[in-house]
Amino acid sequence: MDKKALMDKVEWIFVNQMPYNQFLGISVAVLNAERAEIVLPWKDEFIGNPTQKILHGGVISAVLDNVGGMLAAASIIDKLPDSELHTVPSKLATLGTIDIRTDFIRPGRGDSFVASAQLIRSGNKVCVCRMELHNDEGVQIAFGTATYLVG
Amino acid sequence: MDKKALMDKVEWIFVNQMPYNQFLGISVAVLNAERAEIVLPWKDEFIGNPTQKILHGGVISAVLDNVGGMLAAASIIDKLPDSELHTVPSKLATLGTIDIRTDFIRPGRGDSFVASAQLIRSGNKVCVCRMELHNDEGVQIAFGTATYLVG
Amino acid sequence: MDKKALMDKVEWIFVNQMPYNQFLGISVAVLNAERAEIVLPWKDEFIGNPTQKILHGGVISAVLDNVGGMLAAASIIDKLPDSELHTVPSKLATLGTIDIRTDFIRPGRGDSFVASAQLIRSGNKVCVCRMELHNDEGVQIAFGTATYLVG
Amino acid sequence: MDKKALMDKVEWIFVNQMPYNQFLGISVAVLNAERAEIVLPWKDEFIGNPTQKILHGGVISAVLDNVGGMLAAASIIDKLPDSELHTVPSKLATLGTIDIRTDFIRPGRGDSFVASAQLIRSGNKVCVCRMELHNDEGVQIAFGTATYLVG
Repeated sequence: MDKKALMDKVEWIFVNQMPYNQFLGISVAVLNAERAEIVLPWKDEFIGNPTQKILHGGVISAVLDNVGGMLAAASIIDKLPDSELHTVPSKLATLGTIDIRTDFIRPGRGDSFVASAQLIRSGNKVCVCRMELHNDEGVQIAFGTATYLVG
Repeated sequence: MDKKALMDKVEWIFVNQMPYNQFLGISVAVLNAERAEIVLPWKDEFIGNPTQKILHGGVISAVLDNVGGMLAAASIIDKLPDSELHTVPSKLATLGTIDIRTDFIRPGRGDSFVASAQLIRSGNKVCVCRMELHNDEGVQIAFGTATYLVG
Repeated sequence: MDKKALMDKVEWIFVNQMPYNQFLGISVAVLNAERAEIVLPWKDEFIGNPTQKILHGGVISAVLDNVGGMLAAASIIDKLPDSELHTVPSKLATLGTIDIRTDFIRPGRGDSFVASAQLIRSGNKVCVCRMELHNDEGVQIAFGTATYLVG
Repeated sequence: MDKKALMDKVEWIFVNQMPYNQFLGISVAVLNAERAEIVLPWKDEFIGNPTQKILHGGVISAVLDNVGGMLAAASIIDKLPDSELHTVPSKLATLGTIDIRTDFIRPGRGDSFVASAQLIRSGNKVCVCRMELHNDEGVQIAFGTATYLVG
C-alpha cells in the first residue's frame, strides 16, 4: 500500500473498527500529515447535563483524543520512507495516548461539531497535538493538548 | 432537604438524569465530602481499539470527570451552613469542569471498573480533584486531575 | 487611575515588585486586554542541562505563567466598568494560578525569548490562557495552558 | 560503574552541573528506583508576589520537574541489565520532559520545602511521574504530573 492508501486505512479503522467511535458516529473530513478534522453529529445520548442539551465532557475529550490520534497516525505514515511502509501496521498497533488535557471553554451546544488537530511536536517516539472543537456555527467549545506514543 | 438527602439527589442526577451517564451505565458506590467512587461495568460499545477489548480513552476521561464532578458537588453541599442549603440547586446548576488531564497508565481491560476521586483543593470558587481508575482486579488503568468551577 | 494607568501598574508590579521576576530579568513588550508579550533575555543561570546551553524547564514554565497571569490581570481591568476600578487592587491581590500545563517542543536555545499569551476563556471567576515561547529566531520552544482564579 | 554509583552520579549532575539548579540550591534527600525527594531551602529571590513571602509558581514547577526527572533517570538505570549500564550516559543525554502539569494548592510559604516523586508509568520510551511539594510543616503546596522521554 502507498501512503495515501495507508491513510485511508487509518481513517477507516477509526471510523468503522472501533466500537466506541461507531457509537459516536464520527466521520473524517480531512486527514493528511499536517491536519486532521472529524465531524461529530449531535445525538441525544451525548447529553451530560440534567437540564441543558449540551455535550458531556467525556464526549468532548473522546473526539479530541480521536482527532489527535488520527493525526499522530498520519504523521507516522508520512515520515516513513516508502521502503519501510510495511512496518506501519505494527507501529499503529502500539500507537497510544499517553496523556490528554481538555480545556472546556463554552457549553457544547450545536447540531454538529468539528474537531481539528495540528501537530506541535513530531518525534520518532512521541507526538504532541493541539486540538480544537467548534460547533456548526463556528463557536469554539473546547481546546485539547495530547501526547501520543508513536515509536 | 438535609445534606444527606441533597447528596443522594446529586447521586441520582448523575446516574439517572444525564443521558450520557445512562449510556455508560455507572452506579455510585461511595459519595461523601471526602471521597466519591463510581462503578462502571464493561460494555462492548466502550471498545476503543480495532483488535483489543480495551476501553476507549474517552470513556476513561468521562468516568474520571464524573467522579470528580460528583465529589465537587458533595463538597459544595458539605461546606454550606444548613441555613444556606436552599442555594444548592443554583450552585449545582453552575458547577462545571474547567479542565481535566488524564494520564493513561495501562490498557483498560476488565469486567468492571472503579473510578475514585479525592479533593486536593477545595475553595469557594474552584475545586481540584485527583482521580484514579482501577479494574476489578485492582490494576490501575488511569490517573486524572480536574479543576471544577463551584462558585 | 484609569484603565491604561492600571495596566501600566500591573506591568510595573510584575517586572519590578516580584523578586523572582527580577531574577529572570523580564520586560513587557505588549499588554492589553487581548494580548500580552514578555521578553526574557538569556542568562547563564537559566541553564538546565549539564552539557548544552538550553533553558531549564522551570524557567520556561515561569515565564509562561507570568505572561498568562499578566493577561489575566489585564482582562480583569478591561471588563470592569469605570465606576468599579477602585476594586482592582483587591481583585489583583487574589489573582492566582490554579494550574498550568507546559508542553516542551524544542530545546530552549537562543539569545532572548518572547513569551506571548492569548485568552481562551474569560469569565468572572476563572480565566484560561494559552501561551507560547519563541526564541529570537522565531523558533517555537514551548506551549502552555493555564487556568487563573480572577474572581 | 554499578547502579548505585550511576544513581549517585545522576544526583551529582542535577545538583552541581545544572546552573539553574545551583541557583535553586537544591539537595537530594532520597533517590532510588521507587522514589525521589529533593530539599529546597527558602531564598528571597524565589518570591513571586508583590506583598507576600511566597514562592513564584515557576520555582514550584521547576523543583517538581527536577524531582520527577531525577526519578525518571533512576528508573532508566534500575531497569537496565548490568551488561548495558554503559549505555546510561547516552540515555540520560536524551532524557527530557515532554510535558508537565502543576496544580497549585496553597500559597508557597515556608522555611524549606520537600519535593517528592513517584513513578506511575514506567515504559521503555516514556515515564510518567506524580510529584508533590510540601513545606517544612508538612503542608502540601502543589501537585504535579509530568511525562518524560526516556527511550
